[in-house]
Amino acid sequence: MTPYSCMSKEELENEYAKVMAQYKHCKDQKLNLNMARGKPAKAQLDLVSDMLTVLQTPEDCFDGNIDARNYGELAGLPSARAYWADILDCKPENIFVGGAASLNMMADIVSRAFTHGLLNSPRPWCREEKVKFLCPAPGYDRHFQIGSFYGAELIYVPMTPTGPDMDMVEELVKDPQVKMMWVVPKYSNPDGIIFSDETIQRLASLKAAAPDFAVIWDNAYCIHEFEGDYVPFPDILSLSEKAGNPNMFFEFASTSKITFAGGGVSCMAASVENIHYFTGIFGVQMISYDKVNQLRHVRYLKDKAHTLEIMKRHATVMAPKFRCVSKWLNQKIKPAGIGEWVEPKGGYFVSLYTMPGTAKRTWQLCKEAGVTLTTAGAAYPNSNNPKDNHLRIAPSLPPVEELEKAMEVLTISLKLAALEKLLNP
Amino acid sequence: MTPYSCMSKEELENEYAKVMAQYKHCKDQKLNLNMARGKPAKAQLDLVSDMLTVLQTPEDCFDGNIDARNYGELAGLPSARAYWADILDCKPENIFVGGAASLNMMADIVSRAFTHGLLNSPRPWCREEKVKFLCPAPGYDRHFQIGSFYGAELIYVPMTPTGPDMDMVEELVKDPQVKMMWVVPKYSNPDGIIFSDETIQRLASLKAAAPDFAVIWDNAYCIHEFEGDYVPFPDILSLSEKAGNPNMFFEFASTSKITFAGGGVSCMAASVENIHYFTGIFGVQMISYDKVNQLRHVRYLKDKAHTLEIMKRHATVMAPKFRCVSKWLNQKIKPAGIGEWVEPKGGYFVSLYTMPGTAKRTWQLCKEAGVTLTTAGAAYPNSNNPKDNHLRIAPSLPPVEELEKAMEVLTISLKLAALEKLLNP
Repeated sequence: MTPYSCMSKEELENEYAKVMAQYKHCKDQKLNLNMARGKPAKAQLDLVSDMLTVLQTPEDCFDGNIDARNYGELAGLPSARAYWADILDCKPENIFVGGAASLNMMADIVSRAFTHGLLNSPRPWCREEKVKFLCPAPGYDRHFQIGSFYGAELIYVPMTPTGPDMDMVEELVKDPQVKMMWVVPKYSNPDGIIFSDETIQRLASLKAAAPDFAVIWDNAYCIHEFEGDYVPFPDILSLSEKAGNPNMFFEFASTSKITFAGGGVSCMAASVENIHYFTGIFGVQMISYDKVNQLRHVRYLKDKAHTLEIMKRHATVMAPKFRCVSKWLNQKIKPAGIGEWVEPKGGYFVSLYTMPGTAKRTWQLCKEAGVTLTTAGAAYPNSNNPKDNHLRIAPSLPPVEELEKAMEVLTISLKLAALEKLLNP
Repeated sequence: MTPYSCMSKEELENEYAKVMAQYKHCKDQKLNLNMARGKPAKAQLDLVSDMLTVLQTPEDCFDGNIDARNYGELAGLPSARAYWADILDCKPENIFVGGAASLNMMADIVSRAFTHGLLNSPRPWCREEKVKFLCPAPGYDRHFQIGSFYGAELIYVPMTPTGPDMDMVEELVKDPQVKMMWVVPKYSNPDGIIFSDETIQRLASLKAAAPDFAVIWDNAYCIHEFEGDYVPFPDILSLSEKAGNPNMFFEFASTSKITFAGGGVSCMAASVENIHYFTGIFGVQMISYDKVNQLRHVRYLKDKAHTLEIMKRHATVMAPKFRCVSKWLNQKIKPAGIGEWVEPKGGYFVSLYTMPGTAKRTWQLCKEAGVTLTTAGAAYPNSNNPKDNHLRIAPSLPPVEELEKAMEVLTISLKLAALEKLLNP
């Protein structure tokens, strides 16, 4: 097949007619498919549902002397703190185990930073003239939304194949108004890349002007390989401590994509000083998080080794879906030369870079043909992607047979949007 | 027995020697008993632990078409919203079902009021010169703590046998800086009284100067009778709507003292407009709360009628403890004329009013004899009870045989503190 960029006007017109016919055919099928959010599939939820009956009796509810059913242990059950320390390769005293959502804890950190300040804040952020957040993009829309909600100025930092553009980050943090940065360091949302060792070292060693500059290190996919074996990943807490930034990183993880989405257990990992500071702060709003669910998880997941076995079972559900995405993109989009993507080995997303100026139109065409994607541009600060060249594909929820349909619609829509652009430049 | 106030100096000295000997005897036993917090007893947790196995299979996890194990339904599972509407006698659309802690939702409401404002706020509360919270006292220390944390001025309103001093409240809300009021309307913490119909009607009809004046209606003990039958209680939402204050009340409840403390399910009840407003706001921090636990609770508790049966079982554990407290106070303190208290029929506490100026000393004497009570004065704004005449007794946690010991120590300490005061006025 001739790449679209090498086609004559006539060839483009012929191709347009052909693709339009395919699109109309799709539309006639009145599909209703959703690839908008990174939701686990029913098959994944089923494969961990033995967890439901792990705790059966009053005696089962004791973690040593601690009755998980009663108040207490604000920072989490000792066994749950040890579990997360094992997963994240840090110490139990670095762990605060929360409720079902790590996002809620991130939002709490930002909220308290604005109303009260972080550990080393000269004043609450609401008393600053302006607060800026660095937002490597494409990134996670809900991260950016928290920043916007509290009135922070979101600064776009381009992602590279090794992580955020570190030259730019190192320059930007010289501005004392830059208070926070948001990253998903392993199988980044949505590019699916792993930050390189150099990027991680440079992040750990950042010389920020703001004494309370903080990085939200959202390690949401820390053990979420679906192709190949578990990839070890450095502990940012010890790296940053060695680099003289002991309190700069707030790491987050959860079992939302290990056990139940929205019914799992989240954790924050940070310096002992930060854990102490925030245990005090969280103590105002909470007596203790749901320790019964913490214990249920610890008993079911046991430890890192056993959790990795469960992740292998998730991989058997996930991998065919990502292969399906790759197959369609490689067969239909690569020859046309109208898109680029990385093929991730973990995480929940595929970043699809379209021809500039065609992502929104592709999204709309998909929508009209019954396939819902994450809104084009949503992965950029303020939902604004100046190049209009990015779509996030979230293939985890639909079964493969539905995904085949959805990818057909997506690839046809991509072509149609590209052809429209090329024919009406 | 002669009341202490009628004793001669010699009689007081004899009594002092006698009581001091009793106190020394207690101290020699090196007790370690705790009546500080309203924690359920192990026997109560055991009697609801069948809930652990209510959900067993993937199929069990569906609420109609909704898979409780996946993301979605931020305002709560439909069945959980219906359950709480049944309990609180309002409509499902008035209910937002949250995580394990209603306190966390209260804190979120206050936090967002300060950073963003409530529905009818002219501006975020952090932009107000001053914000004042009305704190009927004695009250719940954690309520007051949230206010202090956000820098609100806490205004003491005395509690009466029918609820807060309403003449004073009606006067105070004429001040536009008065933005919030905190109450526990049924089996109040710690007095254990039920607000009278007149008080409730006057609260519903408050004419506040602040357009965003809000009442935190913490109905924590809405179905928590331990003596006698369930006492029906008016729905504040419809009352306040009729009185022209549709958005003034945020009602809270939870299963923390129905199922597991800290592992239950909380809810907020408010006007549809408020639920809509806060669903938008909570959507920034959450994808959804733990719906698996919501469904587990709904399946186990079923409805109000069945939940009241479970509360009857809790009452069999709770009632003997409150009777034990009454017995000791009636036998030892009433004849000496050095204390007053109400005998509640529900809730978790007994308010003990000591001779003025002796509560702290009593607390200290108890502590030294190995009995921990809630810190004297904690039930007052800023932990400051000017009369130093109040102790909160929380008898739920210890078994009755321990409670007997603890009450012996408490009554002896009360006498000793009173005698010290009378002998050294």
